[in-house]
Amino acid sequence: MSLIPIYPFLIPFLCTTRSLQISACILGLLRIISYRNGSKHEFNHSLIVMPKPLTHWEYFDREIGGPLAVWRAAPADAAAPPEWPWRRVTVPHCATAADCVDPDRPYSQHPGWYRHRLDVRGANRYERLIIECGGLGQTGEVYIDHTCVYRQDLAYDAFEVDITDAVRDWTASGGDPAAVRLAIRVDNSRDLDALPSDLADFHRHRGLLRPVVLNRRPPIAIGALRLANECCAVGSGRIECAIRLDAHADTANPVSIRIQLTDPDGATVVDQTEDHALWTGFKLVELPAVNTVQPWHPEAPRLYTVHLTVKSEYGEHSVTRRLGFRRTAFEPHGPFLLNGARLEIRGTHRHEDAAAIGGAYCPITLRREMQQIKAMGANAIRLGHYPQDDAVLDLCDELGILVWEEIPWCRGGIGDAAYRERLNRSLRRMIERHRHHPCVVWWGLGNENDWFGDQPQRDEHTVRKQLATLHRLAKTLDPQRFTAIRRCHFAADIVDVYSPSIWAGWYRGHYREYRAALETWRDKVSAMVHAEWGGDSHAHRIHENPYLNLGGVASADGQCDERDGDFQRHGGAPRAAADGDWSESYICDLMDWHLKEQAQMPWMTGGFQWVFRDFATPLRPDNPIPYVNQKGLITRDGRPKDAYYVFQSRWANEPMLHIRGTTMPLRWGREGEPLTVRVDSNCERVRLHVDGVDYGERARNPRRFPAQGLSWEIPFKPGAMRLSAVGHHAGGGRVSRELSLSVYPAGWGPEHRLELAREPCETDRIRIRCRVLDKQGRLCLDSRRLLRLTCCGELSLPPGIGAMGGAAVVEAATGQAWWDLEESGPGAIAVSAQDLPTVVLPLSLSGNV
Amino acid sequence: MSLIPIYPFLIPFLCTTRSLQISACILGLLRIISYRNGSKHEFNHSLIVMPKPLTHWEYFDREIGGPLAVWRAAPADAAAPPEWPWRRVTVPHCATAADCVDPDRPYSQHPGWYRHRLDVRGANRYERLIIECGGLGQTGEVYIDHTCVYRQDLAYDAFEVDITDAVRDWTASGGDPAAVRLAIRVDNSRDLDALPSDLADFHRHRGLLRPVVLNRRPPIAIGALRLANECCAVGSGRIECAIRLDAHADTANPVSIRIQLTDPDGATVVDQTEDHALWTGFKLVELPAVNTVQPWHPEAPRLYTVHLTVKSEYGEHSVTRRLGFRRTAFEPHGPFLLNGARLEIRGTHRHEDAAAIGGAYCPITLRREMQQIKAMGANAIRLGHYPQDDAVLDLCDELGILVWEEIPWCRGGIGDAAYRERLNRSLRRMIERHRHHPCVVWWGLGNENDWFGDQPQRDEHTVRKQLATLHRLAKTLDPQRFTAIRRCHFAADIVDVYSPSIWAGWYRGHYREYRAALETWRDKVSAMVHAEWGGDSHAHRIHENPYLNLGGVASADGQCDERDGDFQRHGGAPRAAADGDWSESYICDLMDWHLKEQAQMPWMTGGFQWVFRDFATPLRPDNPIPYVNQKGLITRDGRPKDAYYVFQSRWANEPMLHIRGTTMPLRWGREGEPLTVRVDSNCERVRLHVDGVDYGERARNPRRFPAQGLSWEIPFKPGAMRLSAVGHHAGGGRVSRELSLSVYPAGWGPEHRLELAREPCETDRIRIRCRVLDKQGRLCLDSRRLLRLTCCGELSLPPGIGAMGGAAVVEAATGQAWWDLEESGPGAIAVSAQDLPTVVLPLSLSGNV
Repeated sequence: MSLIPIYPFLIPFLCTTRSLQISACILGLLRIISYRNGSKHEFNHSLIVMPKPLTHWEYFDREIGGPLAVWRAAPADAAAPPEWPWRRVTVPHCATAADCVDPDRPYSQHPGWYRHRLDVRGANRYERLIIECGGLGQTGEVYIDHTCVYRQDLAYDAFEVDITDAVRDWTASGGDPAAVRLAIRVDNSRDLDALPSDLADFHRHRGLLRPVVLNRRPPIAIGALRLANECCAVGSGRIECAIRLDAHADTANPVSIRIQLTDPDGATVVDQTEDHALWTGFKLVELPAVNTVQPWHPEAPRLYTVHLTVKSEYGEHSVTRRLGFRRTAFEPHGPFLLNGARLEIRGTHRHEDAAAIGGAYCPITLRREMQQIKAMGANAIRLGHYPQDDAVLDLCDELGILVWEEIPWCRGGIGDAAYRERLNRSLRRMIERHRHHPCVVWWGLGNENDWFGDQPQRDEHTVRKQLATLHRLAKTLDPQRFTAIRRCHFAADIVDVYSPSIWAGWYRGHYREYRAALETWRDKVSAMVHAEWGGDSHAHRIHENPYLNLGGVASADGQCDERDGDFQRHGGAPRAAADGDWSESYICDLMDWHLKEQAQMPWMTGGFQWVFRDFATPLRPDNPIPYVNQKGLITRDGRPKDAYYVFQSRWANEPMLHIRGTTMPLRWGREGEPLTVRVDSNCERVRLHVDGVDYGERARNPRRFPAQGLSWEIPFKPGAMRLSAVGHHAGGGRVSRELSLSVYPAGWGPEHRLELAREPCETDRIRIRCRVLDKQGRLCLDSRRLLRLTCCGELSLPPGIGAMGGAAVVEAATGQAWWDLEESGPGAIAVSAQDLPTVVLPLSLSGNV
Repeated sequence: MSLIPIYPFLIPFLCTTRSLQISACILGLLRIISYRNGSKHEFNHSLIVMPKPLTHWEYFDREIGGPLAVWRAAPADAAAPPEWPWRRVTVPHCATAADCVDPDRPYSQHPGWYRHRLDVRGANRYERLIIECGGLGQTGEVYIDHTCVYRQDLAYDAFEVDITDAVRDWTASGGDPAAVRLAIRVDNSRDLDALPSDLADFHRHRGLLRPVVLNRRPPIAIGALRLANECCAVGSGRIECAIRLDAHADTANPVSIRIQLTDPDGATVVDQTEDHALWTGFKLVELPAVNTVQPWHPEAPRLYTVHLTVKSEYGEHSVTRRLGFRRTAFEPHGPFLLNGARLEIRGTHRHEDAAAIGGAYCPITLRREMQQIKAMGANAIRLGHYPQDDAVLDLCDELGILVWEEIPWCRGGIGDAAYRERLNRSLRRMIERHRHHPCVVWWGLGNENDWFGDQPQRDEHTVRKQLATLHRLAKTLDPQRFTAIRRCHFAADIVDVYSPSIWAGWYRGHYREYRAALETWRDKVSAMVHAEWGGDSHAHRIHENPYLNLGGVASADGQCDERDGDFQRHGGAPRAAADGDWSESYICDLMDWHLKEQAQMPWMTGGFQWVFRDFATPLRPDNPIPYVNQKGLITRDGRPKDAYYVFQSRWANEPMLHIRGTTMPLRWGREGEPLTVRVDSNCERVRLHVDGVDYGERARNPRRFPAQGLSWEIPFKPGAMRLSAVGHHAGGGRVSRELSLSVYPAGWGPEHRLELAREPCETDRIRIRCRVLDKQGRLCLDSRRLLRLTCCGELSLPPGIGAMGGAAVVEAATGQAWWDLEESGPGAIAVSAQDLPTVVLPLSLSGNV
């Protein structure tokens, strides 16, 4: 191993060496390996042992005044006011997890404090102690005892802090090395200069949203690493790495650098060791060319592993990274090419937000979510609207999901020089941290930057200037990737890839106008993807005719963009978003149509449906589930809606079949009018039986709508009905599904009363169902009444769910709603709805009173 | 009227003229009179028309980001996020009124924003527009549109802001003069440099706690006024005033000054007018001596009225003040003299805190409270622990109540130079604002400044230095008044008057040790008053033997001071505060003993019982009513406890009689053991009948304990019992009272279950009573079980009450608790207690289900 000629794709690294030395403590560049106190994290192709996150945190959910007050509550100090409710928490932790979907008030936006007693015993006198945090919401400070050792002014940005000197001060003044005072203040207060803005359509969660670890490094260690690789057209690949050492000790002896490269099968490609004198700045190293690369592709996400070890007289320090070889290109006006062949971008979006946990994902929940996305057949994701956790990128690498990652410049307008500096720094740090991931294709520079609410002026000129700066910065740091923005029409020319705002059939026009809207945009920009399309659906709400109230929706004339106020549920011009029924029935049609059209435009690069999971947002208090954006394909607590299967039927390879209506197996109709049964499947042929009667086989045709032609009409018959569908897949597989339905006669009267009943629940909770009935006691299947649950005694609804079953205030879905209550003793519940009498149900322990 | 020789007592005014010009916009010096838009405010002796407070405020209960965001919600701006819950409020307004006694979480401490559309139409081009605010919690900023026109860093400090120029900018840029944007940010966030400290034993409420008014003044107006008066030994009085003009216009014509003085009977003493050229700085004016003053005294609070008018070519401007002539002195080591004769200081305390309103008193509630204090016979009050509203001082002037007012330096220790500057400024402004009130006798410089929790060091030296600075400042500004502090033993020598910490029978020792503790202190300081004595009582809790658990309380050996941790209800050495039953029975004895002793020490200056009304405090979450300091003589919702009458019987002149136990007419006993009946009365003789049987007459003897000898023993008889007492007053009056009792046999078993019942309520609410019963269904009269009420459906407990009837979590009092619920439809309630089964009561509209 020796210094080698510099490849062109490494030049930008060198140009920025100086500035990088300044911002040297960037966690993201590193994946530190420690074999002490480690926990195993199994990847597809390699075993990486990560440092164990720090446990035993306590949290104080408000401003405490300063680090002095954090530690005043020590038992020895009798002056400690007893009112301070420190509570034990596990980090990652989201302080707004419970209140972000509280129907009765906006979420909390204020500071909070974490504290932890660090154990640094056993550290030798040379060892460096590094605190690493994957990112916090939204700004913060890190303290050792009373000393501020780091200020973080970038939301969702990973950082590391060398606390060695502060810890030394602590122990020198008699502090216990087994209990070093670590405090972290976090703050998500409103601020007109906040990034992201409070105008953004998601919660700016508060907390240590991502893991915090303590690393111990020898005094000669890998301080920063830049890894670049290129997949050459001829099939060979090149890897370069630039290493900067963190040297807190002198050494007269040489430092040895070992570099190991293994291929996707685990075979060693390179294993070389070389001695060097200590150096400063970045030293470039190239590995021997990989002659026949195994390319990375969503269908086969093949990953190489680089393992770097620096060894000095003080000990060893290693870093492991995974790489993939792939080439990306946009043909002018479409399509998108991966490794030289067209790839339709089948994308969705994710926020870091889910039921009960808010913005603090644990590895299990994250992996489950990413696997759901992959199983749906998606090959791309836009991480909206901020840099996400390293673990997300790792999973995208592994699962084969292309990534659009973006900085949190989302609405608000443009602020002063300090604001713009933060934007630049946010982009720089995101790129430096995640550039080595093969999954990343786009660096997003912003979203809806035509929205100027935080600033007094609508300063389009400065926004353009800033986007140009960001674009140049991204291209300098990472010429391989594309820059992208969504919805900022006056700056579409600045970036590599632009996404217009098109919401056909939701915020404007009919979904059948989708293709026209896309084509309107096709010629305007060289490279376009369509990020954010879809619409809201209230899970479990179905309707036999979801088009009832949409007669007044005007044609969009090729302009299906969302405009100011369209996102609100009331007021403005007729549109599905305001006048539609928010049923799953409608959204399945809308999604189905979009996917059919996307598949039939060979020029189209693809799109990113908005959004994979229902998520919390402060801007939508009057949604069917207050404060939840319901555009997800799965509910906020992770259950697929019917629309998930519409995607799967058109995108996934594994044989699948789904009968629409499983989330709410109720139907209604009239004597003599047929019911329509639709099946979403990727099977070539599907046969339907109803109560044992064969209704024939349909051949699937992706050009047909709805359901690719897998649609049947069956006679109306009130009462129970059993559907059974069997599909035959082209690959030879056979899939069958059954669905038991209750069929009601249409013709119920106006909503008259509520009825409560307890029913079995699959968990150890108590399920209470409320039905909206007419005067004759018939279920009002189209009721959308807002129902409010209250509890007393030993019954409670777990907070922060934001989904049916856990939303204290919720609109009826298909005439009903339910709640899964926790019970530790007797109590009562009541359900209220406007203009209907409140109903009360007392409950003894595990049974009605 | 002309410039006159300067009296010595005016010298300090002149010395500080310069600094006062700098801080010229001090509202407190002024009582502006306006005859436009005014509302009448009737005083005893004069009719003063005050400017009407601004109504139609809206409040946003969190940080909004800045003034731009305040006005973004304008209807024309479709970008306004709908989640912003501005709500209409009336100012004075306390944002922590509801949550300060929430049993489940500490009160909110964060910023909030008020907005109001000012109507300035009709202002002529010369007129000055002044916003006046009586004080806010805890710091704030005032904005006109986006311009910050004032920053207030002193809690509870009145201020005024000249907004004329900012309003001109608004209208010049097309703003509507009928809707000038006024926004005020308030903030009670935790801050280690806060004054008062968060360690203080009361809530630092958030809000515009006192009225806000808009004043219009001519451009030549009275800008500041300093009024001094002296009561000469010979019975004549002198009045001087120093006037500073606010001149925003030139005038070549003379300015005329009219000065009117009326005596307490409304007769004109002086009415003189004189012309002057415009002047700068303060101009001294003396009125002719008042030859035979009618002195001000608590028994006859005679007030003179000064009415000053400045008239220029631009119009007139007037200021009215009331004065009283009185002389105060402390003889060395006691007693206190008023107008040359001994006056026993019979004082209590008040916080600005009450049920439902928190720290935002309306005039009616304030007047009612002050009248209750006066009716009890108190002649003094300490305003703990911050400057209070002007209206409080006005009422004390009128009612004849001596005042100890103090700056909010209450615990926390001592901060940096900026901290100390705020202390000095707080004192200066308080004195300048309230110096003219005859009621004020003491300027309090601090409270418990030996408590150092907010600062890293225990810096007694700097505390002493700062107290000396404050003492000098007070004496310079107002040589007539005494300086005072309570509990800071290492600085007792610095001030004129010192109060030690003595809590005989509560935090330490037995109440019978009270005199010894006082005498220990007598010789240590030249002038002592005893501020803060008493103890907590849970209203409605009585006990036949409140001394049961006090056997372990050690003698205090003359040192009955409270020490660190004593205030907590658990842990530490045995003491009544922790081991006693917090019954009204015990507290009546404690108060009774203290009053008896105080009355028998001719050397004693007097004391201030702590505190008149139960009040909210963040430091006491585990009190019988969580977060309520229950040392009041009346409950937080204003109902007298028995102890109120103990005071009244020893202090008041009006004939009164009260049978102890009215707040909870239950008694218990054993066959053959007598029951004790006690009557608090200032009658000379009292006769008791029980169920018509005469139990004889007792003569009152103030030297006797308990109840001045008005105590009877009557035979135990279970069931209903009717007491009737008749008293004959020395003045010839006759008072009678009756009390119906339920008498129970002692001997109930352990607490076994709860029982709920609805019962009649004097208001339109639903009263639910919960009784704690033993296995046989007998009431457990000594139960102190913590009971928790929860409601569902259309039932709710009004928030922020902090008193029996309105506290969701409350300890049983005499075996029971109750709640007065608001009801708008069906619902249910449940009551839980540890180790007992939860009970549930469903309620239909106005009746049980």
